[in-house]
Amino acid sequence: MRVGLLGFGTVGSSFAEVLAAGEHKEIQITRVFNRGVQRKRAHDRARFVPAQAVWTDRAEDVLTAPDVEAVVELIGGLDPIEGWLRTAITAGKHVITANKQLLAFRGTELLELAAKHNVQLLFGASVAGGVPVIPGMAQGLSGDSIRRISGIVNGTCNFILSSMETGANYGEVLANAQRAGYAEADPSADVDGFDARAKLCILARLALHAEVRPEDVPAQTIRHVGAVDFPYAKELGCTIRQVSRAQLDGDVVRARVGPMLVPKTSPIAWSRGTQNMIVTSGKFGGDVVFSGHGAGGHPTAVAVVSDVLTIAHGSATVQPSIQKLAVTGDVRAPHYLRLVVADRPGIIAAIAGALANEQINIDSVLQHRGHASDRLPFVVTTEPCLRSTLDRAVAVMSSMDFMIEAPLVLEIFVEEDRETD
Amino acid sequence: MRVGLLGFGTVGSSFAEVLAAGEHKEIQITRVFNRGVQRKRAHDRARFVPAQAVWTDRAEDVLTAPDVEAVVELIGGLDPIEGWLRTAITAGKHVITANKQLLAFRGTELLELAAKHNVQLLFGASVAGGVPVIPGMAQGLSGDSIRRISGIVNGTCNFILSSMETGANYGEVLANAQRAGYAEADPSADVDGFDARAKLCILARLALHAEVRPEDVPAQTIRHVGAVDFPYAKELGCTIRQVSRAQLDGDVVRARVGPMLVPKTSPIAWSRGTQNMIVTSGKFGGDVVFSGHGAGGHPTAVAVVSDVLTIAHGSATVQPSIQKLAVTGDVRAPHYLRLVVADRPGIIAAIAGALANEQINIDSVLQHRGHASDRLPFVVTTEPCLRSTLDRAVAVMSSMDFMIEAPLVLEIFVEEDRETD
Repeated sequence: MRVGLLGFGTVGSSFAEVLAAGEHKEIQITRVFNRGVQRKRAHDRARFVPAQAVWTDRAEDVLTAPDVEAVVELIGGLDPIEGWLRTAITAGKHVITANKQLLAFRGTELLELAAKHNVQLLFGASVAGGVPVIPGMAQGLSGDSIRRISGIVNGTCNFILSSMETGANYGEVLANAQRAGYAEADPSADVDGFDARAKLCILARLALHAEVRPEDVPAQTIRHVGAVDFPYAKELGCTIRQVSRAQLDGDVVRARVGPMLVPKTSPIAWSRGTQNMIVTSGKFGGDVVFSGHGAGGHPTAVAVVSDVLTIAHGSATVQPSIQKLAVTGDVRAPHYLRLVVADRPGIIAAIAGALANEQINIDSVLQHRGHASDRLPFVVTTEPCLRSTLDRAVAVMSSMDFMIEAPLVLEIFVEEDRETD
Repeated sequence: MRVGLLGFGTVGSSFAEVLAAGEHKEIQITRVFNRGVQRKRAHDRARFVPAQAVWTDRAEDVLTAPDVEAVVELIGGLDPIEGWLRTAITAGKHVITANKQLLAFRGTELLELAAKHNVQLLFGASVAGGVPVIPGMAQGLSGDSIRRISGIVNGTCNFILSSMETGANYGEVLANAQRAGYAEADPSADVDGFDARAKLCILARLALHAEVRPEDVPAQTIRHVGAVDFPYAKELGCTIRQVSRAQLDGDVVRARVGPMLVPKTSPIAWSRGTQNMIVTSGKFGGDVVFSGHGAGGHPTAVAVVSDVLTIAHGSATVQPSIQKLAVTGDVRAPHYLRLVVADRPGIIAAIAGALANEQINIDSVLQHRGHASDRLPFVVTTEPCLRSTLDRAVAVMSSMDFMIEAPLVLEIFVEEDRETD
């Protein structure tokens, strides 16, 4: 199979390298597109591309070329990529891409277009790089009915939060992550949850057979998680991680991304550093865990090469029919509420009153020693309640005169492996 | 696709149930074979089989029937199953099986026969039931070069050893496991490693593209692990698990099954109860972890239904070409040596001398208090050495007059995730 490659950056050149290392004679790169292609062609890593390949800085030279059967897109972003890939698909080319934003926002339409033109559109590298959760689900779990998918799909947030666990504050850790290359100069896509949300939408489509649009999924930033929250979480048997989760609840999909308290016994709490970790919960098969390197040129390239090989060997991916279901971020769960107050009598009574007015039961109140009374952090945990109900109670609390900063609300993530046999 | 089912026990009836629940109209059970079929047909679970299906107690009525395109074999064992499946393949039927012994001992020959007759032979359920490690590797990791595969593939041993971690002894825990249905009346296949070894051979073929025969892989029993070993393991930052492992070392495959010390930081130490956990170590993608329910009717049935769907949707599995490599159980690793002695001066000197004679370096000597001096257990750990070299030193120690019982030798399992990017 002859491949046209769009993009010769870190992942693109790693793709050429992994392909060359595997001695897959059935796959050949015939064309490479990149802006400023002469500079790329002179680069040391160009040695992984066959000498006879055509290098070009015009995408059109690749998209419809007669010596290209499959287009591998490793540039990213929506525009102009969407148009390019539509051109390729319409010209009868298979498409393999690592483009999470494109798949999250335009996946359903592009998959329909590919089906119409009888070509494959594979995107195993778009979520969790080297972790084969997409082919694992598409093939190995196609017989089950998956009710929930959850996990850690953003390595930057996992690095930051697992570092904060040892006592560092957010600002320090972010600066370290930026120096180490784990975080961008503008960290918003990672820490505010937009990257994870796009990946969750891709996973939810495959796992739940439901269309989940990024704009329908609330993404809560991790910026407001403080060093003070980790000792409280620990007392509750938990740690704090950025969790992405979507689950079927009758005809509704409940989906959220954000920092959550995760019990130490949950597989989601296992992940270290920048590792990714995804858990599918099936009606019959129970919980299945996939874990590994979520990013980096080589792991991502493994996923891309695997997709190319899948197509070259004639495999057809089972495309589930996608349902249109209502999507809401309103999840029922126990919650963690961290308040910072100027201490005076009656505070607990006022907080408890705000919760009681919404029929929310308090599970525990925690207050660690050693904080100044004019800026006193303490924690209330609730029994399971809808987030929207809790948000109303928190809005009332926020206007109370003793409240020094906005309350932090974190879901407490509950494992729910089903009994099997 | 019309399916003939061989075996209507726990897994067979679960297969019918999961298939019916998924509304996969493209798959239909047309024939069911079981000995004493009238009893099975009268069973409550027969309701999951379409009313028009033919029930038979003659396997031949299924193997070559014109209304069967795929044979699903859920009986197990080598004989007569091998002959039956050869008949089905030769008659042009696809075969889906959960039969680990058959795949371990006859897999290469059966895959060749299937290729010759242009049919698929899929066996995703033969290892780790509901954990999609076989399709995950075959499709999602086909682009990588896997150097090592390791993990926990026998839930019974994991249940026993993780229970012993809390202080119980082997006999008690085994009896509990037998009462709970996790262990057979004759536990040998599980505790002596034969079940795990068969699964390791199947995984090694796919992961390393190498033929590994069960008889070439040493299987060490867990029967000699004592309650006393867990506190020592803990002091070394480890726990004890039955680990199955095969790795490429140049032109040699090094493979072993048995109880090993596993660092608490390793994913292999995460598994709880009867969970299975498999780690692949790729040249480019690093370590990837798959985990979930390894056994049980429903998780196993999910794997079988997924394989049937894969074939029904026209996917062709990439069959790697299998190399004939030398296989040895002689692994180079640090080791744990637990000795039980009648205490007297000079014992450490004698043990150290036996190791020094084989050029083995001692890493640590541990001796916990509170044991009687006429039956004193203590531990020596070594720096990395070949198992065969250590075994020679241990043979010398065994004949020393202060040695009360045979020394226990356990490999210390070392993680070796590669740097990626």
